[in-house]
Amino acid sequence: MFPFTIRSATEADWPAVWAMFRSAAAAGDVLAYDEHTPEEVARKLWFDPPAVCYVAEEDVRVVGTYYVRPNQPGRGGHVANGGYIVAPEVRGKGLAKALCERSLEVARRLGFAAMQFNFVVATNAAAVRAWEACGFAVVGRLPGAFRHKELGAVDALVMFREL
Amino acid sequence: MFPFTIRSATEADWPAVWAMFRSAAAAGDVLAYDEHTPEEVARKLWFDPPAVCYVAEEDVRVVGTYYVRPNQPGRGGHVANGGYIVAPEVRGKGLAKALCERSLEVARRLGFAAMQFNFVVATNAAAVRAWEACGFAVVGRLPGAFRHKELGAVDALVMFREL
Repeated sequence: MFPFTIRSATEADWPAVWAMFRSAAAAGDVLAYDEHTPEEVARKLWFDPPAVCYVAEEDVRVVGTYYVRPNQPGRGGHVANGGYIVAPEVRGKGLAKALCERSLEVARRLGFAAMQFNFVVATNAAAVRAWEACGFAVVGRLPGAFRHKELGAVDALVMFREL
Repeated sequence: MFPFTIRSATEADWPAVWAMFRSAAAAGDVLAYDEHTPEEVARKLWFDPPAVCYVAEEDVRVVGTYYVRPNQPGRGGHVANGGYIVAPEVRGKGLAKALCERSLEVARRLGFAAMQFNFVVATNAAAVRAWEACGFAVVGRLPGAFRHKELGAVDALVMFREL
């Protein structure tokens, strides 16, 4: 049984989301944002309008989060961007894929025509697999664009799907 | 003879840069930013740190501009992003290519390892040609990601080169 509840974030969720963001940033293997990211930068990306933020709970603990927002302004604003974090202790239970599927529904509901990820770390095989399972295709590859904490410079991928 | 002088922008140049930005945004054929872009958004992108801004003058009139800035935060901050505007009345004189070449020098001097354009409108053949002449390769294609004012949805390209 899928043990998670996915719901809209409220103001009270920000500390938990920020803690997840900080951990993912410090890990240095999935996010361009690093351990020096100011809280207001993370919040502006992930939590404040035009972003919409959702959280996944197991029992009453926040163990996952995603946001949906426009990827470009104006004439590119019909394409959404999304970001996802799954807590290390609940990985391998299908939560990333579930969050991504929900985010596609949210993006559709908000009127977006497509969704784009700008910077998927190529060595993050679990993420690439999850996004491909959700219908995303790799449409670009950025050579050495991510400085992985352990592996050094690795490629980042651009992934895209229509809605 | 190349009739342009390219130099660092000063605070006094912002009104001219903003006027060029507004015209390019209103044209609806090259920039994701549209005619509703607030001045502070344009300035933050193009003019304020960490962006560095340059202008091209013909006589004493500003007829071109570019910026260089990090394309991603933190672990992606070694790749630069650049943006360019050439006034319609001076097109066809090689200014776009000259601005791009200068921006590559600036990016190198600032310590960047590569440069990336996230959103080159595929129908903007003069730009694609100029960037390719400056060593950029198309590394990604975003289907229908730009709503062209006259042509409707057209592709946008991701272009990249090492420095």
